[in-house]
Amino acid sequence: MKVPRPVIKRMPVYYRCLERLKNEGVKYVSSQKLARRLHLKDSQIRKDLSHFGKFGKRGVGYEVESLLNDITKILGLHKQWKVIVIGAGNIGKAIARFRALEKNNFKVVAVFDTDKRKIGTELLPGLKILDMASLRDFVGREGADLAILAVPASSAQAVANDLQKAGIRGILCFAPVTLNCAIPVEYVDITAFLKTLAYSVLTEKYNV
Amino acid sequence: MKVPRPVIKRMPVYYRCLERLKNEGVKYVSSQKLARRLHLKDSQIRKDLSHFGKFGKRGVGYEVESLLNDITKILGLHKQWKVIVIGAGNIGKAIARFRALEKNNFKVVAVFDTDKRKIGTELLPGLKILDMASLRDFVGREGADLAILAVPASSAQAVANDLQKAGIRGILCFAPVTLNCAIPVEYVDITAFLKTLAYSVLTEKYNV
Repeated sequence: MKVPRPVIKRMPVYYRCLERLKNEGVKYVSSQKLARRLHLKDSQIRKDLSHFGKFGKRGVGYEVESLLNDITKILGLHKQWKVIVIGAGNIGKAIARFRALEKNNFKVVAVFDTDKRKIGTELLPGLKILDMASLRDFVGREGADLAILAVPASSAQAVANDLQKAGIRGILCFAPVTLNCAIPVEYVDITAFLKTLAYSVLTEKYNV
Repeated sequence: MKVPRPVIKRMPVYYRCLERLKNEGVKYVSSQKLARRLHLKDSQIRKDLSHFGKFGKRGVGYEVESLLNDITKILGLHKQWKVIVIGAGNIGKAIARFRALEKNNFKVVAVFDTDKRKIGTELLPGLKILDMASLRDFVGREGADLAILAVPASSAQAVANDLQKAGIRGILCFAPVTLNCAIPVEYVDITAFLKTLAYSVLTEKYNV
């Protein structure tokens, strides 16, 4: 039975909220309280979680740490994912240096580029920019799982093909394209978020 | 009549695809062809667009440039949006330097930070890092519309409050929080995308 995509997209939101509650020392939380924090309906939260099993107790709610552990396993975050970044431009470098990744068990193990002036330079201690030509060897040797694609749109599909051949199992794509891939792809289009925001701002105004 | 959020989220995807088709010199496109490019159903595309009016002709399809212009207006992209970036860390700097923003009519007019060592330095020609203390004056004077929030989670809500008081009309939030705001907010949580991707990779494997 396939879990609907909107449900899967909300699981990381629950994860993040439970993590915060845990850090605040909260032991139990009701679906109502979670709903208020996340601007969702409590019935939605209960229905979403029911796709993955039986969680929480009537009248008590969810045990924060236990539900967090369950979602950690559902999302496969109890093991570390090795991530490579392709493209050492502004976005690629920012992602590679983004500390939240490792805190969430995504470890950036290498950054690749084709620019000879960038290859060999160190982004962080122990994190060098490598030559794209060594991609296949590297993935075979180090066993990277996921790739973050931060290359121009014009080369994104060719790089995605290389990544699949190299054995990468999933791609997070920052390039403004739709890829043809046999492996899972998630897209982050920052301008699309701004466009949705612009629309919301305009329609808010019209609604006044 | 409020347009459902998933429809609004797909409009920038149509926009991007039509823009590419236009650049390729394509004059007309059917919903079937759009659907194949975008891995969607053609009925979905027709239904989505029907929220905004009557587009396309039976047997001919959509005129690419005309539909692109219509979506441009729907999303409010025919005028330029002035954008400020809050937080000159890795993500904030990468976003401020991201050329795709201006191409899409989002112009980054200033970057703000509280770090005295960063204030006054130039990120791009004509784009200096300004003191957060001058936010309200700047927004009042320059009339910025949208803010990109790239500060740590711990200060995100306080900054969001300042942004609202200063007259900002919408926030794109990169901090891993849920904000309480009276203005529209869109969230970009890069680790959430990776978590969804990890889940897809794991379940793909199980499905084999």
